[in-house]
Amino acid sequence: MNFSIKKDILLDGLLNVSRALSTKNLIPILSGIKFELKKNGLYLTGSDNDITIQSFIENKKENISNLENEGSIVIQGKYIVEIIRKLPDEIVNIELIDGLKVLIYTKNAKFNLNGMDPTEYPKLDLQTNNKPIILDKKILKNIVNQTSFAASNQETRPLLTGINFKISNNKLECIATDSYRLAKKIIKLDGKNEDNNIIIPSRNLVELTKILLDNDDEKVEMYVFSNKIIFKFDNIIFQSRLLNGTYPDTSKLIPEEYSLSIITNPYELYDVIDRASLLMSDREKNIVNLDINKNNVKITSNSPEIGKVEETMDVENENKETLKISFSATYMMEALRAIQSDRVKILFNGDMKPIILKNPDDDNLIQLILPIRTY
Amino acid sequence: MNFSIKKDILLDGLLNVSRALSTKNLIPILSGIKFELKKNGLYLTGSDNDITIQSFIENKKENISNLENEGSIVIQGKYIVEIIRKLPDEIVNIELIDGLKVLIYTKNAKFNLNGMDPTEYPKLDLQTNNKPIILDKKILKNIVNQTSFAASNQETRPLLTGINFKISNNKLECIATDSYRLAKKIIKLDGKNEDNNIIIPSRNLVELTKILLDNDDEKVEMYVFSNKIIFKFDNIIFQSRLLNGTYPDTSKLIPEEYSLSIITNPYELYDVIDRASLLMSDREKNIVNLDINKNNVKITSNSPEIGKVEETMDVENENKETLKISFSATYMMEALRAIQSDRVKILFNGDMKPIILKNPDDDNLIQLILPIRTY
Repeated sequence: MNFSIKKDILLDGLLNVSRALSTKNLIPILSGIKFELKKNGLYLTGSDNDITIQSFIENKKENISNLENEGSIVIQGKYIVEIIRKLPDEIVNIELIDGLKVLIYTKNAKFNLNGMDPTEYPKLDLQTNNKPIILDKKILKNIVNQTSFAASNQETRPLLTGINFKISNNKLECIATDSYRLAKKIIKLDGKNEDNNIIIPSRNLVELTKILLDNDDEKVEMYVFSNKIIFKFDNIIFQSRLLNGTYPDTSKLIPEEYSLSIITNPYELYDVIDRASLLMSDREKNIVNLDINKNNVKITSNSPEIGKVEETMDVENENKETLKISFSATYMMEALRAIQSDRVKILFNGDMKPIILKNPDDDNLIQLILPIRTY
Repeated sequence: MNFSIKKDILLDGLLNVSRALSTKNLIPILSGIKFELKKNGLYLTGSDNDITIQSFIENKKENISNLENEGSIVIQGKYIVEIIRKLPDEIVNIELIDGLKVLIYTKNAKFNLNGMDPTEYPKLDLQTNNKPIILDKKILKNIVNQTSFAASNQETRPLLTGINFKISNNKLECIATDSYRLAKKIIKLDGKNEDNNIIIPSRNLVELTKILLDNDDEKVEMYVFSNKIIFKFDNIIFQSRLLNGTYPDTSKLIPEEYSLSIITNPYELYDVIDRASLLMSDREKNIVNLDINKNNVKITSNSPEIGKVEETMDVENENKETLKISFSATYMMEALRAIQSDRVKILFNGDMKPIILKNPDDDNLIQLILPIRTY
């Protein structure tokens, strides 16, 4: 293994695959990044057995030069990333010497690193023979940003830590719920797609969005297997395991009719609720009260030790009904932020039934929050 | 107590005085900020008994309006700062009602806060009757930035956690040392100043620099008392306790003559040492070796488990002597960063004697580092 490579390109690849490395990993070899030099280029792989990320740098003269001898080695992730990041040179030379020793050098600097045996690295099958589902990068990012926060972070109900991706009739329905709230996003798919129903760990999808760059017109290929999913884009392969089990049926949770609906600006309402929840000593249980009148709403909160807050805000009340209802400030704020529109429609069926939020001009995103009984 | 105040001005004042609040404070009243409204304006005070900061907002129409009834109240620091920060309005109204209840309101929002009894707040004497020492803000900031890192953070030798300010013959000498390295900065004072010799806690001076804004042409007045020091600038009073005791005499540590001196760019040398120390597993004990040759230096480090680094760098070697010496990478990097010049002169007297760094064109800053014996 012997090659010269453009520093910035190598650093990009290393930063992407190092997202799969876990600091908590108990398997020593998985603290490393696998370098695999082939005639067609350099494959970098990082994995924690849950996520695997592979980045490919093609052997063309803008990237790699002096490629001699194929070969592979595993290098400690935290050292190699910092070394490459901090080298001032434009080109870095990498050479495998003495079996497991790696020499990284530029004009003035020489790093001799102890590598790890690549034959000990887990065999990872990143082949994709089946037919992919194709999504815009931007749409995939939106799905994750608009649903992942509603997934549970409690391992007591593992299935709820995932996002349910359900494909039927060329429609993709993505649902996350922690059983107190729910986020649902529906996407129309292009082409013909097989029906499918899988659960992807939510935090893996959040990691995926971090390496989805903002060249939004590009596509992501999604390959579904029985126990894993592979996303392919740019020169990157991102693999996540799936959660095994049947996701709860939530279709009956969302009512067809509502007794009261208001329309307002979600950003302004977000700020009002943010201020109303300021005086809570325990931010996790921050309950605010909403008092809906004919032309405005009053948001109040009360913390006997610290004090109380009261704020009014004008809204459009379509039915001119009134209602008092209480809910978690955090849940409402996260749902409002996901609306991504200047207007939000909030629907109610009395003070004990789910609250629904959606964009008044778009039925493809639904946020649901259960109210909290305060009396 | 009843007044209206420009939100941004109140927030500025609150942010400044809240730097004195400690989250670890066991005295409940010190988690609050004292509001004291007088005819001439609003005094805000925060204190943890170690540092006290007072900010004064003058009663003039750009700041305060509708000032009625003098009075005072102590309000929980963490709540009042967040409330004022998050209010969207330009003007905030504050009113003391019912003894210890504070009403903070704008057009749409009303916060009722439980305050604390101002008579329980410690009596702090911030009077300054004696004659101040006057320094440029920029110079005071530089003193702290160029010396504080060399102070000890170990409470086993409390005096070394401070910076020694010694005034004699209208010269201010500031020294910090943790006994392995030393930083010394000398400033010529204007006017006539009494001789003095005090030790100010280093971390208090670092807090002070955070509220010294960058209007660099302005002055800071320094008032020295037997057990405290007061800094006055803008509308702020910053008080710190002093450390009691006699600071060690370090005057004999800095040699008059040197057997070897090199001149180089401190930023480049910083980067080289930074890279050489990358492979250390314990960053606290990161020893690098310097091998001085006629026209260049070689920096090496070796960590048997991880690997080794070797980098060469051209330097001016004034005496054409050679030397091998080892030192802490962290100490050398912090000293190099304090030089604040494009050139640094590094002076040696063999491999066991202190290393001295200074700006070749300015004798007022000296950085000293003890070498480490590696054989």
